[in-house]
Amino acid sequence: MTTPPTETLLEAVSFAARAHRHQIRKDRETPYAAHPFRVCLVLQRVFGIDDPATLTAALLHDTIEDTPTDFDDVAERFGETVAGWVAALTKDMRLRDDLREPAYFAALAAADGPVHLVKLADLYDNLCDSSHLPSATRQRSLRRAREFVEFFRPHVKPEAAAAFALTEERLARAASEI
Amino acid sequence: MTTPPTETLLEAVSFAARAHRHQIRKDRETPYAAHPFRVCLVLQRVFGIDDPATLTAALLHDTIEDTPTDFDDVAERFGETVAGWVAALTKDMRLRDDLREPAYFAALAAADGPVHLVKLADLYDNLCDSSHLPSATRQRSLRRAREFVEFFRPHVKPEAAAAFALTEERLARAASEI
Repeated sequence: MTTPPTETLLEAVSFAARAHRHQIRKDRETPYAAHPFRVCLVLQRVFGIDDPATLTAALLHDTIEDTPTDFDDVAERFGETVAGWVAALTKDMRLRDDLREPAYFAALAAADGPVHLVKLADLYDNLCDSSHLPSATRQRSLRRAREFVEFFRPHVKPEAAAAFALTEERLARAASEI
Repeated sequence: MTTPPTETLLEAVSFAARAHRHQIRKDRETPYAAHPFRVCLVLQRVFGIDDPATLTAALLHDTIEDTPTDFDDVAERFGETVAGWVAALTKDMRLRDDLREPAYFAALAAADGPVHLVKLADLYDNLCDSSHLPSATRQRSLRRAREFVEFFRPHVKPEAAAAFALTEERLARAASEI
């Protein structure tokens, strides 16, 4: 019997929790795994996304970039499509920062719709989460969010257009709260 | 501005991750917080429950029993209703085990529908999760799940009847896989 999609999603929760188990968020007390769980909830409840593969990619979106997990680890358990989406959400850490960001943005712009949805949910959650951080950190994170939104605007895939609008609204709210 | 329900739910993810940060699951490697998040996903995706308060209680359901969190910590951040549901899902650790279980079962039977939904999702997730455990552990966990289902049957609140049927089906599948 093949595993039902929801049970694969449950396994992705545990996989992400194990991969990130030694990391914490910027508040220095919340386990990092809370973030991919929250991104999965933003996709479901704010953006209205129900596709299990997209939700799985959300749960795994930082595993290749931030943990010893590689493409094959993800592909073996969750398939090549999900692994490819996670890879597109992963910066090339071999590059110098000033080259890494443009390369990352260019790859994102060209990526599939589900990658755009996860990236926007990631940004959305960071906007919700930053309200607890010191003002200087919030200002910096808002500035980067705004730059990203402006860059991304002409590239957003149609299936992510509504999510883009919701993220822009959330950005405006975060800016008004500073 | 009051916090939108989804953002309260995101905060409950982080709250649960912090509360359980030093605990792991029975496989001895998965951070415990994966479990409440999975229970939240079971409620949404298997039982079709969308109520943010019920989902919040799912995220917090083990915090009072297993961590230093108390009723007031939950009530202060998430309200008295959610705190009351979490309390109903909490065993009285002051009692001897043979008195504790009947007291817990009796309180559950008398509890609100959302408590029944979370308890069934908890059981459902444990059934999914136990497939990785050694056979003796699985057998014991299946026996306890069966006892609980038989006890619970005459007490299930109408709003949890469909979830009860789905949990019974999942139990039968787990039994067939041993």
